[in-house]
Amino acid sequence: MSQTIGFIGLGLMGRPMAKNLLKAGYKLVVNSRSQGPVDDLVSSGAVRAITPADVARQATCIITMVPDSPDVELVLDGPNGVFTALQPGTIIIDMSSIAPGVARRLADRANALGGTMLDAPVSGGDIGAINGTLSIMVGGDAAAFAKAKPILDVMGNPEKIVHIGESGSGQLCKLCNQMVIGGTLVVVAEALALAKKAGVDAGKVREALLGGFAQSRVLEVHGDRALKNTYKPGFYTHLFAKDMRNVVATLAEHETAAPVTAVVQQLLHATMAAGRGNDDNSVMAKTVFDMSGLK
Amino acid sequence: MSQTIGFIGLGLMGRPMAKNLLKAGYKLVVNSRSQGPVDDLVSSGAVRAITPADVARQATCIITMVPDSPDVELVLDGPNGVFTALQPGTIIIDMSSIAPGVARRLADRANALGGTMLDAPVSGGDIGAINGTLSIMVGGDAAAFAKAKPILDVMGNPEKIVHIGESGSGQLCKLCNQMVIGGTLVVVAEALALAKKAGVDAGKVREALLGGFAQSRVLEVHGDRALKNTYKPGFYTHLFAKDMRNVVATLAEHETAAPVTAVVQQLLHATMAAGRGNDDNSVMAKTVFDMSGLK
Repeated sequence: MSQTIGFIGLGLMGRPMAKNLLKAGYKLVVNSRSQGPVDDLVSSGAVRAITPADVARQATCIITMVPDSPDVELVLDGPNGVFTALQPGTIIIDMSSIAPGVARRLADRANALGGTMLDAPVSGGDIGAINGTLSIMVGGDAAAFAKAKPILDVMGNPEKIVHIGESGSGQLCKLCNQMVIGGTLVVVAEALALAKKAGVDAGKVREALLGGFAQSRVLEVHGDRALKNTYKPGFYTHLFAKDMRNVVATLAEHETAAPVTAVVQQLLHATMAAGRGNDDNSVMAKTVFDMSGLK
Repeated sequence: MSQTIGFIGLGLMGRPMAKNLLKAGYKLVVNSRSQGPVDDLVSSGAVRAITPADVARQATCIITMVPDSPDVELVLDGPNGVFTALQPGTIIIDMSSIAPGVARRLADRANALGGTMLDAPVSGGDIGAINGTLSIMVGGDAAAFAKAKPILDVMGNPEKIVHIGESGSGQLCKLCNQMVIGGTLVVVAEALALAKKAGVDAGKVREALLGGFAQSRVLEVHGDRALKNTYKPGFYTHLFAKDMRNVVATLAEHETAAPVTAVVQQLLHATMAAGRGNDDNSVMAKTVFDMSGLK
């Protein structure tokens, strides 16, 4: 008989991830704030749970995929949360992107209740979620990681699932990931802006740069979106802004100086202020172009 | 009988590039400030020229590979420079990295004297020069580019030689390249610094990030150097600082706002001030680590 997995949070990312688990033959108990996605999963064979506690009663492996730290705290540690009904030996896999400090605290709580919690944030966007090719950065107990690996393999690319270290290290790695994406995105936009202002074919510049040390996935994918001026998400800018808030709080916590990241966050504020929170995060390029009077 | 090529500037890059031309069967007339590299090339079959004018008398295709704008101005437009003895129909290929405005002005001068000048700066470092796998960004006349292409193919990867547009656009593209490398380098260092400060395995973080949207050649190559704390050039930091001076001057010329690039230049000043000009440019990571008290 196949294993039952609890899945909490059926948003842009969670819904296709849950569907891939169903397709792989797992039994699913699902819970989400919006009932539309729940109805969708139930029609594909999942069982509806009214509360997170209701999930915990029916599954000893529980995945959470919600927006931010307070959301994870609510579904795990809130009223009718998972912790109120946790079965001994349960593995919680939090695949949300949240503050590493919160991940560590919740993992300690899970331990105290006889469970285990992994932090396992992802990268790769909705396309990665749909295709089951996400990269996954995992923090927490190595034995729990080994048990969870076959389940993670269904949602991610098995070669891109890395056990980073102890609790919180998956989240910390995700913050590093967002820092690098943000900085690369802004500097790519600055370079393309210079080309445009100088009357040089920015598409040719992108092509040439992809052939050398300036190559990056951001130049390839986001650079292309910037030149085509199409910012359909993808990955929402308001979620990127949330991640950057966690980045700067964590930089402060560990007394780490990151001047480029500081500039990136200010440009992200400008991007939000321009009403671009629901565009793809590559829309930061538009903010950079605007500064130089480019369309 | 094979074509004769003039080659001026046999430094860290020019010397292996000239050697590859010799190996490919071209006749070479060489000139350089230091006589050591000239002796080396002559012992391999090249002909020594005492001055750049002397090169111009013996070749109708002339490559220049010197450090900065004033050096190119000197060997072309100075006393005993190439322009004093230019044969009609000569193609000058300047593969140095210099200011786009200077490249345009010198190309105009070459035209007025009956010649043609391409700006063709490279990316790929000494390894690319030695292996003949450089990427080359070319500005200038399309017919001259077509004539020069077989020669460029010897020094670069034929698939990574891009004709960007008119005179100066190759140099402008190179500046874009350096902006992107600089910004990516600093933000990668910031992310690795956060991992180190948080006590997380920075090598694992690098590995995980290479699997997703944070992937870049800089994370792969320079990130590895930063983690191993080995900064053997490669590409000298003092030359990178020269490129960044050309970047900021060109940003000002075209009224382009580039706040991340501005921060990168300041960190480059700090890197030079720390006496790291003769290290590989990836040593900027050390400057970032220093700021957070990391070794």
